[in-house]
Amino acid sequence: MIRISVLQMHTAGADTTANLERIEQAALEAAQGGATLLITPELGVTSYGGGRAVIDLAEPADGPLVERLGEIARTTGVAIVAGFAEKAGDAVYNSAVYTDGAGTPSVYRKSHLYGDYERGLFKPEKPSTCLFSHGGMTLGMLICYDVEFPENVRRLVQAGAEMILVPTATPMGSSGTFIAEKMIAVRGFENQIFIAYANNTGRDGDFVYAGQSVITAPDGSVLASAGLSEEMLTADIDQTLYARSRSENTYLRDL
Amino acid sequence: MIRISVLQMHTAGADTTANLERIEQAALEAAQGGATLLITPELGVTSYGGGRAVIDLAEPADGPLVERLGEIARTTGVAIVAGFAEKAGDAVYNSAVYTDGAGTPSVYRKSHLYGDYERGLFKPEKPSTCLFSHGGMTLGMLICYDVEFPENVRRLVQAGAEMILVPTATPMGSSGTFIAEKMIAVRGFENQIFIAYANNTGRDGDFVYAGQSVITAPDGSVLASAGLSEEMLTADIDQTLYARSRSENTYLRDL
Repeated sequence: MIRISVLQMHTAGADTTANLERIEQAALEAAQGGATLLITPELGVTSYGGGRAVIDLAEPADGPLVERLGEIARTTGVAIVAGFAEKAGDAVYNSAVYTDGAGTPSVYRKSHLYGDYERGLFKPEKPSTCLFSHGGMTLGMLICYDVEFPENVRRLVQAGAEMILVPTATPMGSSGTFIAEKMIAVRGFENQIFIAYANNTGRDGDFVYAGQSVITAPDGSVLASAGLSEEMLTADIDQTLYARSRSENTYLRDL
Repeated sequence: MIRISVLQMHTAGADTTANLERIEQAALEAAQGGATLLITPELGVTSYGGGRAVIDLAEPADGPLVERLGEIARTTGVAIVAGFAEKAGDAVYNSAVYTDGAGTPSVYRKSHLYGDYERGLFKPEKPSTCLFSHGGMTLGMLICYDVEFPENVRRLVQAGAEMILVPTATPMGSSGTFIAEKMIAVRGFENQIFIAYANNTGRDGDFVYAGQSVITAPDGSVLASAGLSEEMLTADIDQTLYARSRSENTYLRDL
Protein backbone atom coordinates (compact mmCIF):
# COMPACT_ATOMS: atom_id res chain seq x y z
CA MET A 1 0.00 0.00 0.00
CA ILE A 2 1.27 3.47 -0.82
CA ARG A 3 -0.18 6.84 0.11
CA ILE A 4 -0.08 9.49 -2.60
CA SER A 5 -0.90 13.18 -2.73
CA VAL A 6 -1.94 15.37 -5.64
CA LEU A 7 -1.28 19.11 -5.63
CA GLN A 8 -3.94 20.97 -7.61
CA MET A 9 -1.83 24.06 -8.15
CA HIS A 10 -2.28 27.67 -9.18
CA THR A 11 1.09 28.37 -10.78
CA ALA A 12 2.81 31.70 -10.34
CA GLY A 13 3.21 31.99 -14.12
CA ALA A 14 6.78 31.69 -15.36
CA ASP A 15 8.24 32.36 -11.87
CA THR A 16 10.08 29.05 -11.55
CA THR A 17 11.45 29.85 -8.10
CA ALA A 18 7.98 30.52 -6.70
CA ASN A 19 6.59 27.38 -8.35
CA LEU A 20 9.37 25.23 -6.91
CA GLU A 21 8.77 26.72 -3.46
CA ARG A 22 5.07 25.87 -3.76
CA ILE A 23 5.96 22.29 -4.71
CA GLU A 24 8.41 22.05 -1.79
CA GLN A 25 5.76 23.29 0.63
CA ALA A 26 3.29 20.70 -0.74
CA ALA A 27 5.92 17.95 -0.42
CA LEU A 28 6.42 18.84 3.25
CA GLU A 29 2.66 18.74 3.76
CA ALA A 30 2.43 15.40 1.92
CA ALA A 31 5.22 13.99 4.13
CA GLN A 32 3.38 15.08 7.28
CA GLY A 33 0.30 13.25 5.97
CA GLY A 34 2.27 10.06 5.42
CA ALA A 35 2.44 10.19 1.62
CA THR A 36 5.54 9.03 -0.27
CA LEU A 37 4.63 10.46 -3.68
CA LEU A 38 3.39 13.90 -4.78
CA ILE A 39 1.95 14.50 -8.25
CA THR A 40 1.85 18.10 -9.53
CA PRO A 41 0.32 19.60 -12.72
CA GLU A 42 1.46 19.81 -16.35
CA LEU A 43 4.26 22.35 -16.79
CA GLY A 44 3.70 23.32 -13.16
CA VAL A 45 7.34 24.32 -12.68
CA THR A 46 7.67 26.51 -15.78
CA SER A 47 3.91 27.32 -16.22
CA TYR A 48 1.62 26.21 -19.03
CA GLY A 49 0.25 29.57 -20.07
CA GLY A 50 3.45 31.63 -20.36
CA GLY A 51 3.90 31.20 -24.12
CA ARG A 52 7.46 31.86 -25.35
CA ALA A 53 8.59 32.51 -21.76
CA VAL A 54 8.02 28.80 -21.07
CA ILE A 55 10.36 27.88 -23.90
CA ASP A 56 13.01 30.27 -22.57
CA LEU A 57 12.86 28.41 -19.22
CA ALA A 58 13.38 24.99 -20.82
CA GLU A 59 16.18 22.90 -19.31
CA PRO A 60 17.65 19.48 -20.02
CA ALA A 61 16.48 16.64 -17.78
CA ASP A 62 19.87 16.66 -16.04
CA GLY A 63 19.76 20.40 -15.44
CA PRO A 64 19.39 22.35 -12.18
CA LEU A 65 15.56 22.37 -12.27
CA VAL A 66 15.22 18.59 -12.07
CA GLU A 67 18.13 18.52 -9.62
CA ARG A 68 16.18 20.92 -7.39
CA LEU A 69 13.12 18.62 -7.55
CA GLY A 70 15.39 15.72 -6.55
CA GLU A 71 16.63 17.76 -3.59
CA ILE A 72 13.04 18.38 -2.49
CA ALA A 73 12.37 14.63 -2.73
CA ARG A 74 15.53 13.82 -0.72
CA THR A 75 14.84 16.30 2.05
CA THR A 76 11.12 15.53 2.43
CA GLY A 77 11.17 11.78 1.68
CA VAL A 78 8.40 12.36 -0.87
CA ALA A 79 9.08 11.46 -4.51
CA ILE A 80 7.93 14.16 -6.93
CA VAL A 81 6.17 14.04 -10.29
CA ALA A 82 6.35 17.46 -11.93
CA GLY A 83 5.85 18.97 -15.37
CA PHE A 84 8.50 21.13 -17.04
CA ALA A 85 9.67 22.34 -20.43
CA GLU A 86 12.51 20.00 -21.39
CA LYS A 87 15.30 21.13 -23.71
CA ALA A 88 16.94 18.40 -25.79
CA GLY A 89 19.24 19.74 -28.47
CA ASP A 90 17.20 22.25 -30.48
CA ALA A 91 13.87 20.73 -29.44
CA VAL A 92 11.68 21.59 -26.47
CA TYR A 93 9.30 18.92 -25.14
CA ASN A 94 6.33 19.17 -22.79
CA SER A 95 7.69 16.69 -20.23
CA ALA A 96 7.03 15.21 -16.81
CA VAL A 97 9.69 13.87 -14.46
CA TYR A 98 9.54 11.40 -11.59
CA THR A 99 12.36 11.76 -9.10
CA ASP A 100 12.94 10.32 -5.66
CA GLY A 101 16.21 12.20 -5.31
CA ALA A 102 18.29 9.01 -5.35
CA GLY A 103 17.95 7.05 -8.59
CA THR A 104 18.08 8.46 -12.12
CA PRO A 105 14.95 10.57 -12.77
CA SER A 106 12.37 9.06 -15.17
CA VAL A 107 11.25 11.47 -17.89
CA TYR A 108 8.14 11.18 -20.08
CA ARG A 109 7.53 13.46 -23.08
CA LYS A 110 3.97 14.30 -24.19
CA SER A 111 3.03 12.63 -27.47
CA HIS A 112 -0.37 14.18 -28.20
CA LEU A 113 -0.05 17.96 -28.18
CA TYR A 114 -3.39 19.78 -27.95
CA GLY A 115 -4.27 22.64 -30.27
CA ASP A 116 -2.27 25.35 -31.98
CA TYR A 117 -0.86 26.81 -28.75
CA GLU A 118 0.99 23.66 -27.71
CA ARG A 119 1.96 22.73 -31.26
CA GLY A 120 3.48 26.18 -31.73
CA LEU A 121 5.70 25.74 -28.66
CA PHE A 122 6.64 22.09 -28.28
CA LYS A 123 7.83 19.15 -30.30
CA PRO A 124 5.64 16.05 -29.93
CA GLU A 125 7.40 12.84 -28.93
CA LYS A 126 6.40 9.53 -30.52
CA PRO A 127 4.02 7.63 -28.19
CA SER A 128 6.33 6.09 -25.59
CA THR A 129 6.14 4.00 -22.44
CA CYS A 130 8.02 5.28 -19.42
CA LEU A 131 7.58 3.00 -16.39
CA PHE A 132 9.23 3.10 -12.98
CA SER A 133 8.89 1.42 -9.63
CA HIS A 134 7.65 3.17 -6.50
CA GLY A 135 6.73 1.51 -3.21
CA GLY A 136 6.54 -1.88 -4.89
CA MET A 137 4.15 -0.75 -7.64
CA THR A 138 4.85 -0.17 -11.32
CA LEU A 139 3.86 3.34 -12.31
CA GLY A 140 3.66 5.21 -15.61
CA MET A 141 3.09 8.79 -16.69
CA LEU A 142 0.99 10.49 -19.38
CA ILE A 143 0.34 14.20 -19.82
CA CYS A 144 -3.11 15.80 -20.21
CA TYR A 145 -4.48 15.12 -23.74
CA ASP A 146 -2.47 11.87 -23.90
CA VAL A 147 -4.78 10.19 -21.36
CA GLU A 148 -7.87 11.05 -23.41
CA PHE A 149 -6.73 8.49 -26.01
CA PRO A 150 -7.52 4.97 -24.76
CA GLU A 151 -4.66 3.65 -26.89
CA ASN A 152 -2.04 5.45 -24.76
CA VAL A 153 -3.36 4.10 -21.47
CA ARG A 154 -3.70 0.56 -22.84
CA ARG A 155 -0.09 0.65 -24.05
CA LEU A 156 1.25 1.50 -20.60
CA VAL A 157 -0.97 -1.07 -18.88
CA GLN A 158 0.00 -3.84 -21.26
CA ALA A 159 3.62 -2.99 -20.43
CA GLY A 160 2.83 -3.43 -16.74
CA ALA A 161 1.60 -0.11 -15.31
CA GLU A 162 -0.64 -0.48 -12.23
CA MET A 163 -1.16 3.24 -11.75
CA ILE A 164 -0.82 6.14 -14.19
CA LEU A 165 0.09 9.63 -13.02
CA VAL A 166 -1.23 12.44 -15.22
CA PRO A 167 -0.03 16.02 -14.83
CA THR A 168 -2.57 18.08 -16.78
CA ALA A 169 -3.64 21.61 -17.74
CA THR A 170 -7.25 20.96 -18.69
CA PRO A 171 -9.13 24.19 -19.31
CA MET A 172 -12.42 25.18 -17.71
CA GLY A 173 -15.49 24.13 -19.71
CA SER A 174 -17.94 21.31 -20.22
CA SER A 175 -15.31 19.09 -21.86
CA GLY A 176 -12.94 19.59 -18.94
CA THR A 177 -15.62 18.63 -16.44
CA PHE A 178 -16.62 15.59 -18.53
CA ILE A 179 -13.01 14.39 -18.64
CA ALA A 180 -12.52 14.86 -14.89
CA GLU A 181 -15.85 13.37 -13.84
CA LYS A 182 -16.25 10.51 -16.32
CA MET A 183 -13.33 9.83 -18.64
CA ILE A 184 -10.61 9.39 -16.01
CA ALA A 185 -12.71 6.87 -14.07
CA VAL A 186 -13.47 4.98 -17.30
CA ARG A 187 -9.78 4.86 -18.31
CA GLY A 188 -9.06 3.27 -14.92
CA PHE A 189 -12.02 0.88 -15.05
CA GLU A 190 -11.37 -0.38 -18.59
CA ASN A 191 -7.80 -1.24 -17.57
CA GLN A 192 -8.36 -2.04 -13.90
CA ILE A 193 -5.72 0.44 -12.73
CA PHE A 194 -5.40 3.51 -10.49
CA ILE A 195 -5.14 6.99 -12.03
CA ALA A 196 -4.01 10.24 -10.39
CA TYR A 197 -5.03 13.26 -12.49
CA ALA A 198 -3.37 16.47 -11.25
CA ASN A 199 -4.70 19.64 -12.83
CA ASN A 200 -3.72 23.28 -12.74
CA THR A 201 -6.30 25.70 -11.39
CA GLY A 202 -6.98 29.42 -11.58
CA ARG A 203 -5.86 31.81 -14.32
CA ASP A 204 -2.47 31.59 -16.04
CA GLY A 205 -1.92 33.83 -19.06
CA ASP A 206 -4.83 33.28 -21.44
CA PHE A 207 -5.91 30.06 -19.73
CA VAL A 208 -8.36 29.33 -16.94
CA TYR A 209 -8.12 25.74 -15.75
CA ALA A 210 -10.83 23.29 -14.77
CA GLY A 211 -9.35 22.13 -11.44
CA GLN A 212 -11.35 19.00 -10.50
CA SER A 213 -8.23 16.86 -10.02
CA VAL A 214 -9.13 13.28 -9.18
CA ILE A 215 -7.70 9.97 -7.97
CA THR A 216 -9.63 6.90 -9.19
CA ALA A 217 -9.52 3.19 -8.40
CA PRO A 218 -9.61 0.09 -10.66
CA ASP A 219 -13.37 -0.32 -10.12
CA GLY A 220 -13.97 3.24 -11.35
CA SER A 221 -14.67 4.62 -7.89
CA VAL A 222 -13.34 8.04 -6.90
CA LEU A 223 -10.85 7.94 -4.02
CA ALA A 224 -10.43 11.72 -3.82
CA SER A 225 -11.52 14.71 -5.91
CA ALA A 226 -10.97 18.46 -5.87
CA GLY A 227 -13.11 21.47 -6.60
CA LEU A 228 -11.87 24.60 -8.36
CA SER A 229 -9.51 26.00 -5.69
CA GLU A 230 -5.88 25.20 -5.03
CA GLU A 231 -5.88 22.13 -2.80
CA MET A 232 -4.16 18.85 -1.91
CA LEU A 233 -5.73 15.42 -2.38
CA THR A 234 -4.51 12.30 -0.59
CA ALA A 235 -5.44 8.65 -1.14
CA ASP A 236 -4.23 5.22 -0.12
CA ILE A 237 -3.45 3.01 -3.11
CA ASP A 238 -4.08 -0.61 -2.17
CA GLN A 239 -4.15 -2.84 -5.24
CA THR A 240 -5.29 -5.83 -3.15
CA LEU A 241 -8.71 -4.28 -2.42
CA TYR A 242 -9.94 -4.62 -6.01
CA ALA A 243 -9.83 -8.38 -6.56
CA ARG A 244 -13.60 -8.57 -7.08
CA SER A 245 -13.54 -5.82 -9.67
CA ARG A 246 -10.68 -7.51 -11.50
CA SER A 247 -12.48 -10.87 -11.51
CA GLU A 248 -15.66 -9.23 -12.93
CA ASN A 249 -13.94 -7.02 -15.49
CA THR A 250 -11.21 -9.08 -17.11
CA TYR A 251 -10.54 -6.69 -19.95
CA LEU A 252 -6.83 -7.29 -20.27
CA ARG A 253 -7.21 -11.07 -20.34
CA ASP A 254 -10.11 -10.93 -22.81
CA LEU A 255 -8.73 -8.29 -25.17
CA MET B 1 -31.74 14.04 -38.74
CA ILE B 2 -33.17 10.68 -37.77
CA ARG B 3 -35.35 9.77 -34.83
CA ILE B 4 -34.52 6.49 -33.09
CA SER B 5 -36.15 4.45 -30.36
CA VAL B 6 -34.66 1.97 -27.91
CA LEU B 7 -36.77 -0.79 -26.39
CA GLN B 8 -35.51 -1.70 -22.92
CA MET B 9 -37.16 -5.13 -22.87
CA HIS B 10 -38.10 -7.78 -20.35
CA THR B 11 -37.89 -10.89 -22.54
CA ALA B 12 -40.38 -13.70 -22.14
CA GLY B 13 -37.51 -16.20 -21.85
CA ALA B 14 -37.14 -18.57 -24.80
CA ASP B 15 -40.68 -17.82 -26.07
CA THR B 16 -39.64 -16.46 -29.45
CA THR B 17 -43.21 -15.78 -30.57
CA ALA B 18 -43.93 -13.62 -27.53
CA ASN B 19 -40.62 -11.78 -27.90
CA LEU B 20 -41.32 -11.05 -31.58
CA GLU B 21 -44.79 -9.78 -30.70
CA ARG B 22 -43.26 -7.46 -28.09
CA ILE B 23 -40.82 -6.14 -30.68
CA GLU B 24 -43.66 -5.64 -33.19
CA GLN B 25 -45.69 -3.72 -30.63
CA ALA B 26 -42.66 -1.52 -29.87
CA ALA B 27 -42.08 -0.92 -33.59
CA LEU B 28 -45.69 0.27 -33.98
CA GLU B 29 -45.21 2.59 -31.00
CA ALA B 30 -41.90 3.84 -32.45
CA ALA B 31 -43.62 4.53 -35.80
CA GLN B 32 -46.35 6.51 -34.08
CA GLY B 33 -43.61 8.58 -32.38
CA GLY B 34 -41.97 9.34 -35.71
CA ALA B 35 -38.94 7.06 -35.30
CA THR B 36 -37.49 5.15 -38.26
CA LEU B 37 -35.22 2.81 -36.29
CA LEU B 38 -35.82 0.62 -33.22
CA ILE B 39 -32.94 -0.94 -31.26
CA THR B 40 -33.74 -3.93 -29.02
CA PRO B 41 -31.55 -5.86 -26.54
CA GLU B 42 -28.93 -8.61 -26.90
CA LEU B 43 -30.52 -11.96 -27.76
CA GLY B 44 -33.89 -10.29 -27.20
CA VAL B 45 -35.64 -12.59 -29.70
CA THR B 46 -34.30 -15.87 -28.36
CA SER B 47 -33.51 -14.68 -24.77
CA TYR B 48 -30.09 -14.33 -23.16
CA GLY B 49 -30.67 -16.38 -20.02
CA GLY B 50 -32.24 -19.54 -21.47
CA GLY B 51 -29.03 -21.58 -21.60
CA ARG B 52 -29.17 -24.55 -24.03
CA ALA B 53 -32.71 -23.56 -25.04
CA VAL B 54 -31.23 -20.48 -26.71
CA ILE B 55 -28.95 -22.69 -28.80
CA ASP B 56 -31.88 -24.88 -29.83
CA LEU B 57 -33.63 -21.74 -31.15
CA ALA B 58 -30.65 -20.68 -33.28
CA GLU B 59 -31.43 -19.95 -36.92
CA PRO B 60 -29.40 -18.88 -39.92
CA ALA B 61 -29.49 -15.19 -40.84
CA ASP B 62 -31.70 -16.00 -43.84
CA GLY B 63 -34.14 -18.05 -41.74
CA PRO B 64 -37.75 -17.31 -40.74
CA LEU B 65 -36.81 -15.39 -37.59
CA VAL B 66 -34.92 -12.65 -39.43
CA GLU B 67 -37.56 -12.76 -42.17
CA ARG B 68 -40.21 -12.07 -39.52
CA LEU B 69 -38.19 -9.08 -38.26
CA GLY B 70 -38.02 -7.83 -41.86
CA GLU B 71 -41.80 -8.15 -42.12
CA ILE B 72 -42.22 -6.07 -38.94
CA ALA B 73 -39.91 -3.43 -40.47
CA ARG B 74 -41.88 -3.43 -43.76
CA THR B 75 -45.28 -3.15 -42.15
CA THR B 76 -44.34 -0.49 -39.58
CA GLY B 77 -41.82 1.50 -41.61
CA VAL B 78 -39.37 1.16 -38.70
CA ALA B 79 -36.05 -0.62 -39.29
CA ILE B 80 -35.21 -3.12 -36.55
CA VAL B 81 -31.97 -3.98 -34.74
CA ALA B 82 -32.44 -7.20 -32.78
CA GLY B 83 -30.28 -9.82 -31.11
CA PHE B 84 -30.64 -13.54 -31.87
CA ALA B 85 -28.74 -16.81 -31.74
CA GLU B 86 -27.37 -17.31 -35.25
CA LYS B 87 -26.70 -20.77 -36.63
CA ALA B 88 -23.94 -21.01 -39.23
CA GLY B 89 -22.95 -24.60 -40.01
CA ASP B 90 -22.14 -26.26 -36.71
CA ALA B 91 -21.45 -22.96 -34.94
CA VAL B 92 -23.85 -20.70 -33.05
CA TYR B 93 -23.01 -17.01 -32.75
CA ASN B 94 -24.38 -14.31 -30.45
CA SER B 95 -25.52 -11.99 -33.28
CA ALA B 96 -27.41 -8.80 -33.99
CA VAL B 97 -29.25 -8.02 -37.20
CA TYR B 98 -30.29 -4.74 -38.82
CA THR B 99 -33.16 -5.08 -41.25
CA ASP B 100 -35.38 -2.53 -42.95
CA GLY B 101 -37.38 -5.29 -44.64
CA ALA B 102 -36.18 -4.30 -48.10
CA GLY B 103 -32.40 -4.66 -48.50
CA THR B 104 -30.28 -7.60 -47.39
CA PRO B 105 -30.12 -7.69 -43.57
CA SER B 106 -26.77 -6.69 -41.98
CA VAL B 107 -25.53 -9.18 -39.40
CA TYR B 108 -22.88 -8.57 -36.73
CA ARG B 109 -21.46 -11.39 -34.58
CA LYS B 110 -20.19 -10.70 -31.05
CA SER B 111 -16.39 -10.94 -30.79
CA HIS B 112 -15.84 -10.57 -27.04
CA LEU B 113 -17.90 -13.17 -25.21
CA TYR B 114 -18.29 -12.47 -21.49
CA GLY B 115 -17.66 -15.17 -18.88
CA ASP B 116 -18.12 -18.92 -18.80
CA TYR B 117 -21.86 -18.79 -19.55
CA GLU B 118 -21.49 -17.17 -22.97
CA ARG B 119 -18.30 -19.04 -23.83
CA GLY B 120 -20.06 -22.32 -23.11
CA LEU B 121 -22.86 -21.50 -25.56
CA PHE B 122 -21.47 -19.40 -28.40
CA LYS B 123 -18.56 -19.24 -30.78
CA PRO B 124 -16.75 -15.88 -30.72
CA GLU B 125 -16.29 -14.15 -34.08
CA LYS B 126 -13.03 -12.36 -34.89
CA PRO B 127 -13.42 -8.60 -34.29
CA SER B 128 -15.27 -7.38 -37.38
CA THR B 129 -16.72 -4.18 -38.78
CA CYS B 130 -20.32 -4.31 -39.98
CA LEU B 131 -21.51 -0.93 -41.26
CA PHE B 132 -24.75 0.03 -42.99
CA SER B 133 -26.56 3.16 -44.07
CA HIS B 134 -29.77 4.41 -42.47
CA GLY B 135 -31.40 7.78 -43.04
CA GLY B 136 -28.21 9.16 -44.57
CA MET B 137 -26.00 8.15 -41.63
CA THR B 138 -23.43 5.37 -41.41
CA LEU B 139 -24.22 3.05 -38.52
CA GLY B 140 -22.43 0.11 -36.92
CA MET B 141 -23.27 -2.51 -34.31
CA LEU B 142 -21.46 -4.00 -31.32
CA ILE B 143 -22.91 -6.32 -28.68
CA CYS B 144 -22.63 -5.77 -24.91
CA TYR B 145 -19.06 -6.58 -23.70
CA ASP B 146 -17.69 -5.60 -27.16
CA VAL B 147 -18.38 -1.90 -26.50
CA GLU B 148 -16.45 -1.96 -23.23
CA PHE B 149 -13.23 -2.34 -25.26
CA PRO B 150 -12.25 1.04 -26.71
CA GLU B 151 -10.46 -0.78 -29.53
CA ASN B 152 -13.74 -2.12 -30.94
CA VAL B 153 -15.43 1.26 -31.02
CA ARG B 154 -12.39 2.96 -32.54
CA ARG B 155 -12.24 0.36 -35.30
CA LEU B 156 -15.83 1.02 -36.38
CA VAL B 157 -15.43 4.80 -36.18
CA GLN B 158 -12.23 4.77 -38.22
CA ALA B 159 -14.18 2.78 -40.83
CA GLY B 160 -16.81 5.54 -40.90
CA ALA B 161 -19.44 4.82 -38.22
CA GLU B 162 -21.27 7.94 -36.96
CA MET B 163 -23.49 6.04 -34.52
CA ILE B 164 -23.06 2.64 -32.89
CA LEU B 165 -26.05 0.55 -31.85
CA VAL B 166 -25.42 -1.80 -28.92
CA PRO B 167 -27.87 -4.53 -27.97
CA THR B 168 -26.77 -5.62 -24.50
CA ALA B 169 -27.58 -7.88 -21.54
CA THR B 170 -25.63 -6.10 -18.81
CA PRO B 171 -26.38 -7.58 -15.39
CA MET B 172 -27.47 -5.60 -12.34
CA GLY B 173 -24.59 -4.42 -10.15
CA SER B 174 -22.13 -1.60 -9.63
CA SER B 175 -20.22 -2.44 -12.83
CA GLY B 176 -23.44 -2.38 -14.87
CA THR B 177 -24.38 1.03 -13.51
CA PHE B 178 -20.85 2.36 -14.10
CA ILE B 179 -20.95 1.19 -17.73
CA ALA B 180 -24.39 2.71 -18.35
CA GLU B 181 -23.71 6.00 -16.57
CA LYS B 182 -20.11 6.69 -17.52
CA MET B 183 -18.50 4.32 -20.01
CA ILE B 184 -21.05 4.64 -22.82
CA ALA B 185 -20.85 8.44 -22.73
CA VAL B 186 -17.04 8.28 -22.75
CA ARG B 187 -16.99 5.87 -25.73
CA GLY B 188 -19.11 8.40 -27.62
CA PHE B 189 -17.08 11.43 -26.50
CA GLU B 190 -13.66 9.94 -27.28
CA ASN B 191 -14.86 9.19 -30.82
CA GLN B 192 -17.36 12.04 -31.27
CA ILE B 193 -20.19 9.71 -32.21
CA PHE B 194 -23.70 8.78 -31.05
CA ILE B 195 -24.32 5.54 -29.13
CA ALA B 196 -27.61 3.75 -28.47
CA TYR B 197 -27.23 1.16 -25.69
CA ALA B 198 -30.30 -1.09 -25.42
CA ASN B 199 -30.34 -3.33 -22.37
CA ASN B 200 -32.54 -6.15 -21.17
CA THR B 201 -34.33 -5.64 -17.88
CA GLY B 202 -35.97 -7.80 -15.22
CA ARG B 203 -35.21 -11.44 -14.47
CA ASP B 204 -34.44 -14.03 -17.17
CA GLY B 205 -33.24 -17.44 -16.00
CA ASP B 206 -30.35 -16.89 -13.60
CA PHE B 207 -29.84 -13.29 -14.72
CA VAL B 208 -31.20 -9.98 -13.47
CA TYR B 209 -30.36 -7.13 -15.81
CA ALA B 210 -29.27 -3.57 -15.07
CA GLY B 211 -31.73 -1.74 -17.34
CA GLN B 212 -30.44 1.85 -17.56
CA SER B 213 -30.42 1.87 -21.36
CA VAL B 214 -29.03 5.13 -22.72
CA ILE B 215 -28.63 7.19 -25.90
CA THR B 216 -25.59 9.52 -25.85
CA ALA B 217 -24.33 12.31 -28.11
CA PRO B 218 -20.83 13.11 -29.47
CA ASP B 219 -20.23 15.64 -26.67
CA GLY B 220 -20.92 12.97 -24.05
CA SER B 221 -24.34 14.34 -23.13
CA VAL B 222 -27.23 11.98 -22.45
CA LEU B 223 -30.11 12.34 -24.93
CA ALA B 224 -32.35 9.78 -23.19
CA SER B 225 -31.92 7.26 -20.37
CA ALA B 226 -34.04 4.57 -18.75
CA GLY B 227 -34.53 3.33 -15.22
CA LEU B 228 -34.99 -0.32 -14.30
CA SER B 229 -38.46 -0.99 -15.78
CA GLU B 230 -39.41 -2.00 -19.30
CA GLU B 231 -39.63 1.22 -21.29
CA MET B 232 -39.04 2.94 -24.63
CA LEU B 233 -36.51 5.72 -25.19
CA THR B 234 -36.63 8.10 -28.14
CA ALA B 235 -34.08 10.64 -29.35
CA ASP B 236 -33.40 12.81 -32.36
CA ILE B 237 -29.98 12.19 -33.86
CA ASP B 238 -28.71 15.38 -35.48
CA GLN B 239 -25.03 15.17 -36.27
CA THR B 240 -24.91 18.84 -37.26
CA LEU B 241 -25.56 20.03 -33.68
CA TYR B 242 -22.15 18.91 -32.40
CA ALA B 243 -19.78 20.98 -34.52
CA ARG B 244 -18.39 22.79 -31.45
CA SER B 245 -17.70 19.55 -29.64
CA ARG B 246 -15.96 18.13 -32.71
CA SER B 247 -13.80 21.23 -33.08
CA GLU B 248 -12.75 21.06 -29.40
CA ASN B 249 -12.17 17.32 -29.25
CA THR B 250 -10.39 16.33 -32.43
CA TYR B 251 -9.43 12.85 -31.29
CA LEU B 252 -9.69 11.13 -34.65
CA ARG B 253 -7.58 13.73 -36.41
CA ASP B 254 -4.98 13.79 -33.63
CA LEU B 255 -4.72 10.05 -33.01
